[in-house]
Amino acid sequence: MVAPTGAYADSDMFKLQCSRSSDRPAAKRWDNHLTDECRARAPGILKVAARFLKRPGMISLAGGLPSPDYFPFSSISATIPAIPGAAESDVFEAESTIAMGLRDIASGDAAFDLSVALNYGQAAGSAQMIRWITEHTELVHKPLYADWDTCLTTGNTAGIYQALRMLCDKNRGDSWMTEEYCYASALETALPMGIKTVGIKMDADGPIPEVMDELLTNWDAAKKGARKPHVLYTVPTGQNPTGSTQSAARKRAIYKACQKHDIYIVEDDPYYFLQLPSNSNSHQNSSKLPINTFLSNLPPSFLSIDTDGRVMRIDSFSKVIVPGARMGWVTASEQMIERFIRHAETASQGPSGFSQALIYKLVDEKWGHQGFLDWLQHLQAEYTGRRDVMLAAFEKFLPKSIVSWNSPSAGMFCWIKIKHSLRPNAKLYSALDIEEEIFAACLKRGVLIAKGSWFRAEPDLPLDDVFFRLTFAASSAENMEVAVRTFGTALRSIFNLA
Amino acid sequence: MVAPTGAYADSDMFKLQCSRSSDRPAAKRWDNHLTDECRARAPGILKVAARFLKRPGMISLAGGLPSPDYFPFSSISATIPAIPGAAESDVFEAESTIAMGLRDIASGDAAFDLSVALNYGQAAGSAQMIRWITEHTELVHKPLYADWDTCLTTGNTAGIYQALRMLCDKNRGDSWMTEEYCYASALETALPMGIKTVGIKMDADGPIPEVMDELLTNWDAAKKGARKPHVLYTVPTGQNPTGSTQSAARKRAIYKACQKHDIYIVEDDPYYFLQLPSNSNSHQNSSKLPINTFLSNLPPSFLSIDTDGRVMRIDSFSKVIVPGARMGWVTASEQMIERFIRHAETASQGPSGFSQALIYKLVDEKWGHQGFLDWLQHLQAEYTGRRDVMLAAFEKFLPKSIVSWNSPSAGMFCWIKIKHSLRPNAKLYSALDIEEEIFAACLKRGVLIAKGSWFRAEPDLPLDDVFFRLTFAASSAENMEVAVRTFGTALRSIFNLA
Repeated sequence: MVAPTGAYADSDMFKLQCSRSSDRPAAKRWDNHLTDECRARAPGILKVAARFLKRPGMISLAGGLPSPDYFPFSSISATIPAIPGAAESDVFEAESTIAMGLRDIASGDAAFDLSVALNYGQAAGSAQMIRWITEHTELVHKPLYADWDTCLTTGNTAGIYQALRMLCDKNRGDSWMTEEYCYASALETALPMGIKTVGIKMDADGPIPEVMDELLTNWDAAKKGARKPHVLYTVPTGQNPTGSTQSAARKRAIYKACQKHDIYIVEDDPYYFLQLPSNSNSHQNSSKLPINTFLSNLPPSFLSIDTDGRVMRIDSFSKVIVPGARMGWVTASEQMIERFIRHAETASQGPSGFSQALIYKLVDEKWGHQGFLDWLQHLQAEYTGRRDVMLAAFEKFLPKSIVSWNSPSAGMFCWIKIKHSLRPNAKLYSALDIEEEIFAACLKRGVLIAKGSWFRAEPDLPLDDVFFRLTFAASSAENMEVAVRTFGTALRSIFNLA
Repeated sequence: MVAPTGAYADSDMFKLQCSRSSDRPAAKRWDNHLTDECRARAPGILKVAARFLKRPGMISLAGGLPSPDYFPFSSISATIPAIPGAAESDVFEAESTIAMGLRDIASGDAAFDLSVALNYGQAAGSAQMIRWITEHTELVHKPLYADWDTCLTTGNTAGIYQALRMLCDKNRGDSWMTEEYCYASALETALPMGIKTVGIKMDADGPIPEVMDELLTNWDAAKKGARKPHVLYTVPTGQNPTGSTQSAARKRAIYKACQKHDIYIVEDDPYYFLQLPSNSNSHQNSSKLPINTFLSNLPPSFLSIDTDGRVMRIDSFSKVIVPGARMGWVTASEQMIERFIRHAETASQGPSGFSQALIYKLVDEKWGHQGFLDWLQHLQAEYTGRRDVMLAAFEKFLPKSIVSWNSPSAGMFCWIKIKHSLRPNAKLYSALDIEEEIFAACLKRGVLIAKGSWFRAEPDLPLDDVFFRLTFAASSAENMEVAVRTFGTALRSIFNLA
């Protein structure tokens, strides 16, 4: 490849023969779901011209790419800790190093180097990362339709943002559906765009498909002030903020309702790999499961049950590698990925080359898929231990007469319900008042917790319930116990309990 | 600072006393220029809550930040080449290393480490980079008003994109002005947003202020199909594609016209530091200039003459460090930077932590401002040499009877005009036909050049002139000569010259 910039790649180049088989159906088209802006995006003229560079010997005076001769980085490297208890312990037992030089390709050592990674590249991401993600998708999700594709993002924040720009248009009176309690940043993205958010009532298993079906069947655009929703945004695993995880049956029922009402699904699944088994002690110290056992224990994703190409799945390295990489990926039908890339070309030009270089060296060259899954098992054991510390503190310190909670099977969050009607003189106060009272009492005692009302899809509706979201991801076990005890003390004081 | 995430910082924390002096005027407000979407953006609720974490001893169970204990990077490092001919040659003569560990802050060694850089951070960027950019702005631009501010971007692509979202709204019938030949990606960003682009006629000095004044004075919204433009987008240095650089007098005249018509200026200046002196041989082998001499030789930026806070300046590391960092910065009034950050919070969450860590270590700890400016002088000498190779090849190989060109004093581009009316039977062909004929003839001979028409602000207007953009940035001297000779051969053949 003589192109001076990173070569364009898509998943089709890397799929197993069986997974692009013509036996599989093609994805449906989503033209009617796209915004005018999205439909109007054309490929950048200079990127189109760069296709001529595939011809051997072509000299380009066209693209204003800086010469790698002037990159002030001869090489970059990173020290990687061992994966505790990894199955192949000889490979992973010691700290090790990954490195990438400026001219590794020219010296015949590599397919990727800094002269490519640190120059202008494809907004879709480097060919090397797209290959890895394509293999990963085939291992984990095994899509049922033929023409799926994938590209990198600058993180799930950008994934959600770009999905909204693609699908929702205030001039069309568009709305989207989310869980009734929803990731705050997703709500904050839609609001200034003029997109109405419709919250779907949840139970312990996530959004309730019958509620969604009824809402859509009886939608009255005039009364609701918005067109019938045509997009569902959902966080199916360890949902933020409720910690709920959708069962396979729940996903199938939601998918079916979406088929019935022609709903496009945005599956935002950053916690997918933070599965937290209920019996952590036996798991934590054992060696890692074989790759196939680990994979078969994972719940099916929306992507994996999607026969229509109706799902855009948004994946992230943030929770399982580092948030600061600002790098994730999306998987959907070719049509949708192509539109997504067109947007990324003018919005970001794709993720950092430093991130792409170091994450590629880590997950592909150093770990491979087995090592990555071993790392995930390590994380799962660690986060399971943290969850159990928090749940034990709840048992020990919270007044059960007024407090109930879930036991999350994935993710980073516990969701606590307060029976606020049991507060003395409750009738004098709104639920919002009592939520603020508890929040402020904790704050005064040195503990910051997240109010349930911060996550409401429709904050203008009356608030009936008081919830708090507590994370076990960030604090030490000791601090978690101190904070939960303080929370309990604040509640006892407000509710006048012994 | 006990916050588990990067602390918020703005330029005011780092300004010299004199530059925030109350003697200086405050920026004007730009509320009427902002879009509804931009005005509607509110701070993210969890970022607001994080302010409580400033209180010492506060324990947070609020934010779902992964623990740095689970970051699979113990340290990162990079090898940095020497800066040839740097003034302080003892410091820069040899290859050296920069490195950042996971827990450098805790061990008392540093103000910035991977536990911060690789976790969720501020969309504005790390405090360390904001300090460096604030100092850099005071050294180079010395803004004339008091309440200027700065924040990082994920590159100029994102800077332009976000500026457009802030300022231009198709529902308001908005339009923006650009140079008549304009950076293609900026045009491609505005088009699907439904923003009309109005091209301002240029001369060798850039856009002509009298033409702009007349256009605005006589604007007829009904006839033009757009509201009178309220934004000027300009690339003042080594303009892409024409290579023109605005003189100080030209900038003042443009600024004055913008004041008259209440135009907000977006100054996109990625080539600012690629000044190319006309007498390169004497410069190339000499040692570096003292910092003050170097700085006083730089032309004034729009930012530096801006008394109203009317300018958003977009800067980039892409042309002077590496494009793959996907990191740059914007400088404007506090009001505009605050709105810019609100957008970045839901669009990107700011640049990669790997990029921030490595660039910070390079430009602050390793080089400092003196070293950075030494590096820029090295680049200038190198690119000047490249430009001169290209100009010499033009002299040698191009038929001057039909070809003329500029000698760019900055940037990466030469701009070549073809007297297409001298083609045999010229009247049978449109300018566009002849442009395509020359482009295709070069391509057939193995040379890719960029058509002038790719960069037209208003491609629907009739095309009168045939231009080509040639870059001297990317190819070797040998390849440049081969390519220019081929270009000359193609022209001679088409124009039937000996």
